[in-house]
Amino acid sequence: MTYDDIDIGYDVPAAIGDNIADIQTPALIIDLDAFERNVARMKDHAEAMGVRLRPHAKTHKSADVALYQMASGGAVGVCCQKISEAEALVRGGVTDVLIANEVADPKKIDRLAWLAESAHVSVCVDDPTVVAALSEAAALHGVTLDVLVEIDCGARRCGVLPGAPAVELAKAVAAAPNLAFTGIQAYHGSAQHIYDPVERRAAIDKAIGMARETADLLRDAGLEPAIVTGAGTGTHDLEGASGVYNEIQPGSYIFMDADYARVRSTEGNGTIGGFEHALFVLTSIMSKPASGRAICDAGLKAHSIDSGLPTVFERPDLTFASASDEHGKIEDPQDTLTLNDRLRLVPGHCDPTCNLYDWYVCVRNGRVEALWPVTARGKLY
Amino acid sequence: MTYDDIDIGYDVPAAIGDNIADIQTPALIIDLDAFERNVARMKDHAEAMGVRLRPHAKTHKSADVALYQMASGGAVGVCCQKISEAEALVRGGVTDVLIANEVADPKKIDRLAWLAESAHVSVCVDDPTVVAALSEAAALHGVTLDVLVEIDCGARRCGVLPGAPAVELAKAVAAAPNLAFTGIQAYHGSAQHIYDPVERRAAIDKAIGMARETADLLRDAGLEPAIVTGAGTGTHDLEGASGVYNEIQPGSYIFMDADYARVRSTEGNGTIGGFEHALFVLTSIMSKPASGRAICDAGLKAHSIDSGLPTVFERPDLTFASASDEHGKIEDPQDTLTLNDRLRLVPGHCDPTCNLYDWYVCVRNGRVEALWPVTARGKLY
Repeated sequence: MTYDDIDIGYDVPAAIGDNIADIQTPALIIDLDAFERNVARMKDHAEAMGVRLRPHAKTHKSADVALYQMASGGAVGVCCQKISEAEALVRGGVTDVLIANEVADPKKIDRLAWLAESAHVSVCVDDPTVVAALSEAAALHGVTLDVLVEIDCGARRCGVLPGAPAVELAKAVAAAPNLAFTGIQAYHGSAQHIYDPVERRAAIDKAIGMARETADLLRDAGLEPAIVTGAGTGTHDLEGASGVYNEIQPGSYIFMDADYARVRSTEGNGTIGGFEHALFVLTSIMSKPASGRAICDAGLKAHSIDSGLPTVFERPDLTFASASDEHGKIEDPQDTLTLNDRLRLVPGHCDPTCNLYDWYVCVRNGRVEALWPVTARGKLY
Repeated sequence: MTYDDIDIGYDVPAAIGDNIADIQTPALIIDLDAFERNVARMKDHAEAMGVRLRPHAKTHKSADVALYQMASGGAVGVCCQKISEAEALVRGGVTDVLIANEVADPKKIDRLAWLAESAHVSVCVDDPTVVAALSEAAALHGVTLDVLVEIDCGARRCGVLPGAPAVELAKAVAAAPNLAFTGIQAYHGSAQHIYDPVERRAAIDKAIGMARETADLLRDAGLEPAIVTGAGTGTHDLEGASGVYNEIQPGSYIFMDADYARVRSTEGNGTIGGFEHALFVLTSIMSKPASGRAICDAGLKAHSIDSGLPTVFERPDLTFASASDEHGKIEDPQDTLTLNDRLRLVPGHCDPTCNLYDWYVCVRNGRVEALWPVTARGKLY
């Protein structure tokens, strides 16, 4: 074999059937047993609450994961954040996508309407000028777009104000050719990561109140919101049990990350929903230069530290102390680590971490069972 | 044209010849004029100091940039951090790569020796067990590897202690078949980002002292260190003028980022080396939901916030206040922004930001002049 023979695939981190020890590091690995348990748990939660489950695919960006969520995890479809992300998943076989976000750029609006020729596509709006552009593009492509009005229910990000402004926008949607007013997007992103359950419930109670008020006003105006959707992993049980929301959009529950492990459950006595860590960055010790210190090969390009540093799975004696571009510094006070030892890091934040990789290496019983491409990696548009 | 006609290339953010206004956002753009001035400045600095320039390619991961640095920027070759990164650049035409890092895994050591059949490849060591493995792999592939001993000169990351331990390791390298002892790697990473010039010089003065002591001891032992290499953008002028180092490894100077803009020059009266911002994340306003607040389409997956939030280029009236996965919140106290307005963000940290993108969109005089692939994006192994 010459060097050129490995042109294709030389950076695939493992082959199906490999032992875990043969995976090249750093690699993004899924513990399939834990992942499947997480998927089943959220399916059960949603069924028990009687709400639709539309998981957010921004977490995983994977057609394989999305199709598994729809086939086995009770999902009616998925959410995406960007049109290019939705395109990638539809190409991968996903048939129902809500862009749980605004699309304002004319080229992207055209792509959105175009995509609706191939799949059920819905989208959020918070601006009347976009309503006209969406309507025009939908007409051009001969489709009808389902449109939800996004309200700002506390995150101070996108969204019109709840109540009358939302009703005004819904009226514009309902009046626009080739658009169907479908309901309300009411997602409180920052509340997902409030660690304290009492404070978290207080934030979501306010969001529920705003969604309820808006839904009632819409009904008074003759605009039934068929869908009231929102919630994430951190608050899925609150919106889900509210009687106001009839759809939830959790994403991280399939993987869980180090930050979500700090979010106490609503009852205050465990992790949210009973979800467990199923996603890891597999890393190797590449230098053991001094007592108490080991250096691993997973730095800022291997996991995102925006929500804190990773933890070392099942190794409470070790601390991931700092990251540089391609190195992680591990405090190893008992000097247990030696060169080429491997550790599983639980990333601080799973969504931007997954976006760094081309492949999920899916493992079970110590072996590589599957390689799933990160279908929509880098799809930012 | 059907949807499937755009299967290839539908996520390329622009076409050559496009106006800047037609680039799909978020996109990573290079101001070619500023980039070329930065390359010329560092070439001049290195020539004036009489040291070799081996820019670090971990910043850009681009064969196009590396080849330009070698053809026009005075570079003798480049540095890489990972074997897969080096492989990608060698495939792109780069002929001389120093892995300015340790390679400990047996599979990676094999890949390293294999790569040395196609290019001049050198590597660092800080562990005697790796010396034996490198020697064996080099013999297997019929190559001689140039090996530098890395010393810990203050960063407390990788590297043997300076002085006698480094000499012992150098002796092992020199005695190993198919390895050539080439010199000392003495890079103080954390010093690059010390904003205060007096503190920064103090840290580097210590590093220079350790490199000098080690070089002298090596000479006493009959092991001439042909190369003493290190330094980054923040300290290139200090090691470069030391009389001890004869090679510098700056990376970020080509682009500059928001954090490097905070690093005062050694004279304390300007930015380091006179370098200017040449890399931007082009972003669009996708929501203008409330007075004082605008939301752009560049979040945590569009730039890395590990070294702080981005700044808004040439818009001191605007503040990038916070990022979520796909949104950036812009404080716009004078309400100047409207939907689909575009801004250039200076990323907080250029290296991990570049690693998020597939393409550099290179612009000059308001037009897209070139598209350069991020050749080694995601090459983490």
